[in-house]
Amino acid sequence: MRAGIIGVTGYGGLELFRLLSGHPEIKQVFLYSSSKEGTLLSEDAQHIYGYTDQLRSLEQLESDKLDILFSSAPSGVSTKLLPPYIERKMKVIDLAGDYRLKNADAYQKWYGKEAPNSLLVNEAVYGLTEWNKHEIQQAGFIANPGCYPTATLLAVLPLLKEGLIHADSLIIDAKSGMSGAGATPQKASHFAKANDSMSIYKMNKHQHIPEIEQTIQTLANVETNITFNTHLIPMTRGIMATIYADLSKDIQSSDVSEVLHECYGNKPFIRIFKEKADLFTKQVYGSNYCDLTFGIDERTKRITVVSVIDNLVKGAAGQAVQNMNVIFDFDETEGLSQSPLFP
Amino acid sequence: MRAGIIGVTGYGGLELFRLLSGHPEIKQVFLYSSSKEGTLLSEDAQHIYGYTDQLRSLEQLESDKLDILFSSAPSGVSTKLLPPYIERKMKVIDLAGDYRLKNADAYQKWYGKEAPNSLLVNEAVYGLTEWNKHEIQQAGFIANPGCYPTATLLAVLPLLKEGLIHADSLIIDAKSGMSGAGATPQKASHFAKANDSMSIYKMNKHQHIPEIEQTIQTLANVETNITFNTHLIPMTRGIMATIYADLSKDIQSSDVSEVLHECYGNKPFIRIFKEKADLFTKQVYGSNYCDLTFGIDERTKRITVVSVIDNLVKGAAGQAVQNMNVIFDFDETEGLSQSPLFP
Amino acid sequence: MRAGIIGVTGYGGLELFRLLSGHPEIKQVFLYSSSKEGTLLSEDAQHIYGYTDQLRSLEQLESDKLDILFSSAPSGVSTKLLPPYIERKMKVIDLAGDYRLKNADAYQKWYGKEAPNSLLVNEAVYGLTEWNKHEIQQAGFIANPGCYPTATLLAVLPLLKEGLIHADSLIIDAKSGMSGAGATPQKASHFAKANDSMSIYKMNKHQHIPEIEQTIQTLANVETNITFNTHLIPMTRGIMATIYADLSKDIQSSDVSEVLHECYGNKPFIRIFKEKADLFTKQVYGSNYCDLTFGIDERTKRITVVSVIDNLVKGAAGQAVQNMNVIFDFDETEGLSQSPLFP
Amino acid sequence: MRAGIIGVTGYGGLELFRLLSGHPEIKQVFLYSSSKEGTLLSEDAQHIYGYTDQLRSLEQLESDKLDILFSSAPSGVSTKLLPPYIERKMKVIDLAGDYRLKNADAYQKWYGKEAPNSLLVNEAVYGLTEWNKHEIQQAGFIANPGCYPTATLLAVLPLLKEGLIHADSLIIDAKSGMSGAGATPQKASHFAKANDSMSIYKMNKHQHIPEIEQTIQTLANVETNITFNTHLIPMTRGIMATIYADLSKDIQSSDVSEVLHECYGNKPFIRIFKEKADLFTKQVYGSNYCDLTFGIDERTKRITVVSVIDNLVKGAAGQAVQNMNVIFDFDETEGLSQSPLFP
Repeated sequence: MRAGIIGVTGYGGLELFRLLSGHPEIKQVFLYSSSKEGTLLSEDAQHIYGYTDQLRSLEQLESDKLDILFSSAPSGVSTKLLPPYIERKMKVIDLAGDYRLKNADAYQKWYGKEAPNSLLVNEAVYGLTEWNKHEIQQAGFIANPGCYPTATLLAVLPLLKEGLIHADSLIIDAKSGMSGAGATPQKASHFAKANDSMSIYKMNKHQHIPEIEQTIQTLANVETNITFNTHLIPMTRGIMATIYADLSKDIQSSDVSEVLHECYGNKPFIRIFKEKADLFTKQVYGSNYCDLTFGIDERTKRITVVSVIDNLVKGAAGQAVQNMNVIFDFDETEGLSQSPLFP
Repeated sequence: MRAGIIGVTGYGGLELFRLLSGHPEIKQVFLYSSSKEGTLLSEDAQHIYGYTDQLRSLEQLESDKLDILFSSAPSGVSTKLLPPYIERKMKVIDLAGDYRLKNADAYQKWYGKEAPNSLLVNEAVYGLTEWNKHEIQQAGFIANPGCYPTATLLAVLPLLKEGLIHADSLIIDAKSGMSGAGATPQKASHFAKANDSMSIYKMNKHQHIPEIEQTIQTLANVETNITFNTHLIPMTRGIMATIYADLSKDIQSSDVSEVLHECYGNKPFIRIFKEKADLFTKQVYGSNYCDLTFGIDERTKRITVVSVIDNLVKGAAGQAVQNMNVIFDFDETEGLSQSPLFP
Repeated sequence: MRAGIIGVTGYGGLELFRLLSGHPEIKQVFLYSSSKEGTLLSEDAQHIYGYTDQLRSLEQLESDKLDILFSSAPSGVSTKLLPPYIERKMKVIDLAGDYRLKNADAYQKWYGKEAPNSLLVNEAVYGLTEWNKHEIQQAGFIANPGCYPTATLLAVLPLLKEGLIHADSLIIDAKSGMSGAGATPQKASHFAKANDSMSIYKMNKHQHIPEIEQTIQTLANVETNITFNTHLIPMTRGIMATIYADLSKDIQSSDVSEVLHECYGNKPFIRIFKEKADLFTKQVYGSNYCDLTFGIDERTKRITVVSVIDNLVKGAAGQAVQNMNVIFDFDETEGLSQSPLFP
Repeated sequence: MRAGIIGVTGYGGLELFRLLSGHPEIKQVFLYSSSKEGTLLSEDAQHIYGYTDQLRSLEQLESDKLDILFSSAPSGVSTKLLPPYIERKMKVIDLAGDYRLKNADAYQKWYGKEAPNSLLVNEAVYGLTEWNKHEIQQAGFIANPGCYPTATLLAVLPLLKEGLIHADSLIIDAKSGMSGAGATPQKASHFAKANDSMSIYKMNKHQHIPEIEQTIQTLANVETNITFNTHLIPMTRGIMATIYADLSKDIQSSDVSEVLHECYGNKPFIRIFKEKADLFTKQVYGSNYCDLTFGIDERTKRITVVSVIDNLVKGAAGQAVQNMNVIFDFDETEGLSQSPLFP
């Protein structure tokens, strides 16, 4: 098989390249760039020094025969670039936010950009693999989930769907490593500023909020508004979502445990830890795992659910490859079975 | 004036030494150690290389004439060591948790240790300077607040006292730098494990929970159970508390702002930032500041309040010195006016 | 094939487990521990949560049928544990320093421990794969190189062997990530001490000095004493060796380049960068690469040679697996072809 | 006294502001910016939130009555900005490299910029306080040393001047925290790239090389070419210089120790540690100290000298304030007596 990557110079794109290069079913990976065509990716990206294929132009993409196209271009770019490929029925997986929100007004409000063609938006299948596998199998075009939504939704959907928690009480305190801010140098990611410090940003206004709410509605059938905050942590990779909710009446620890195991027992990338385990982000570093734990506070009748993922793998490129595996009916773990790197 | 420090080899003790050494009213600082008497503190603590006073024994402490004694020994030790000095009316400031909880059962439950003499516990004044200044002025014995309670209480007390938020809805998601775990090497603070990673620990069972609840009751006159979780962040110093609560009816952003400014407008160490400011912990690094911001989410009628402190300064040694200043009627900022170190 | 690992709870052992678990020729990995037999490795090592094989005892090791045994026990332990397995002609690869130094006096002087059985020492083949492949192919017992020696020797051996530099002028300024200090918590690796700081340690007395000198003599046929210093860097993995030497007469940049390419042109794990490239350790993170660059200073007629490796991979477990591949005549890159993880 | 700072938005400028604000002899600090006049420094620099003086324009500077002007503008800017103030005999301390090199050709070669007015260059006194105090006392215009030269020169000048080492053998392996790269976001200082990694940069071509060589000639009276390399370490502040040299005949450890103590015994900011001490950069964090140790390798007859400084304090703003103290005949430690911040 031959795969293509648009936007390979960003962190999501580099990670796609890493995973696809090691994927047993992929024989060739074509890399596209709108601004750096003709140069070598490895000039900038010294970790793949020795890789000698030149970056291809978007013109070449038009005639290249690809079995699947991944786009890791920034939000707003997919809207412009992807339509022709989707329309000609190329399999396309978009890692940006453009095609995730079904509601055009919501997209414009939260992203501050013009919404893409609504026909294509409707065609897009939301690629939360563990929850949408059937749709993904049939899909030609995948809107790959955001990093925060992946960490959040995998933790709360089982509990919401089974009515264990009150949707209206959901508060998500999310923490992310700095690679989530992208590869472009800027003030907040300047080492001397970010090191040995942590920050809160985009209070109540992160664009992943409507994505989480929409998916809760679609997949757990509950309409709700969530409270959601994001923090930058002085680490490279990793997301931890610490999630708070009021328990429904009479729910016990064993109920939660049962629901989680029933939901995820046979899912290869979800690992359910014992109650109140001290999860840490590095335990999934470089892997496609989403690790979960929870704790019930008898004093307040609230539950804390915790999930950790690698934002660039399960939160981006890894889940995209997992979706490709589903589309082409490969084993779901194909090319994704690397152990987390620890320490 | 002559000050003494018990437990100077820990991080709180070292920070006390730093602040007291630079305090204009303190002429001499005596350092005590139960295990290392006769050695030089600077042998281990290379940053004060050249400081040549030997560590003194606890026997010497009995006869030393001190104007004030700080204890930064671990929880459990103060219970045994401090009674004679409190009883002989020496001014004593204890940085451990031993004398903070008025309820002996609560102490035993949360600390797993035998509670100290209840007469002395009752005598102890809780040293949250901005809120207890009058009592501190009269006090002979101060139980200095914990780091998490300081960050939490300074943020929520004004809102609780004025009825702006529902006490029962309080959820505190707290994050701390690793120095909060103390100076003794252990697994969770091993560099290769902690670096480039973050963790959640003591879910719903941190011993600072009853301290926060007790103080809310005492100072804001509300009885409540809070949800409280703690995380370790790969940074040396700093605490951020991200606090969630349901707003009381019809509360607007301007109400919150007004209450905060009224409460803290003339407090030298509280800085109130504009709404939804991107606070980061390093902005208070090495200083006694507590910086605050908040954001109201109109969609959920919840407020997020955020506070950042340096856990070793405002969260420990700095507040202790501030309390000393109050006791001796010095200017509250004496010896504490250093600017945060940035970057 | 069935492989065994002694000392799997250390960082070298965990990395061996990671690599062997993903190795296509290894069907089973048996894990041994002298102190934790019967427990689960994954209890401590959350990144492999779900791995359910119990740690086996050293008694079981005696009767287990293994094709190869890796030992990642600390220095001193191999001396006691390994002899029976070497003697019964099991293939053994030791990652500790015990069997590296041919001279018993040198071992005692630099390690401060009793030297192992000299017959076995003589039997041991030094596993610097790129330089000793022929001997390794025949070997039954491999003394796997230290992390610093690997980084140093791969950089200097070609230049010494071809006489491009003066051996007596060799100065090696080595820097290592903190995982090199092992998995046991201690003062120097305590996060609050090590973070945001770097240190020099063991000035002129690191036990890797005689290993480097002995190998220079064996493989480049030059007797010399080197100057060698080591630094701890606030990062988890990675070694950079910055190496200084006086150039032999009339040596040009092109001579050095030619020698390096001739020596390593067909070696899969050595990547030669252009002159004076800005190498960084993370470009080899998690991989078995050793990346090299050099710069000639015309003003001083000295050369700087720089190498970077991942201390736990090429500097330990990766090279051990590479040696296993050579012994069993597998492709040298089998199980080691993972791309570095960046960022 | 009233001090002015040009270029206060950079890290050197912010540190000058921190130190001058706490300096007992400075009553007022005026801040100048060519691009941000009229705005508040504290808008960007949240650590000084509450500081309400607006940034002043360079036009205002022309008429402001200052006792001393510090310039922390980037190299190249001082050349253009400072001449009028120097000429009107205002006391000026320049933290940039423009006026450090006496040789215009050297400046152009190493900085790639046009050299400043040679009359003013000649007037500039090199502000290495411990070595040039007499000249500084008389000076009207100070070229404040670079960070690497400060760490290097303080370590080697005593040994060179007393003939203990061979100047031609000098090799300096320097390591710096990322704040040395300035406050402007760029690739090499992007957190996700720099974190958990270290790099070598500007091999043999750092612009501080001629500054070190010139000063060795001026102050130790030896002409030499040095080998000098620089590395970026994932920490915010701190420089360690690991310096190698061949010992002169018959020099013993005691000779070195004696020379260092004689040279620096009464210097308040130089701390001489015992031989082969494990220095770490954080032991001087936030302070004006330069800490030194050394080790002699009997096997190679070479010495290793190690120095650590805080690059923003002793390596920039701190030394500038120290020079101001000398010029105005204040105590040398005035405003600089803060203890290092540890941990």
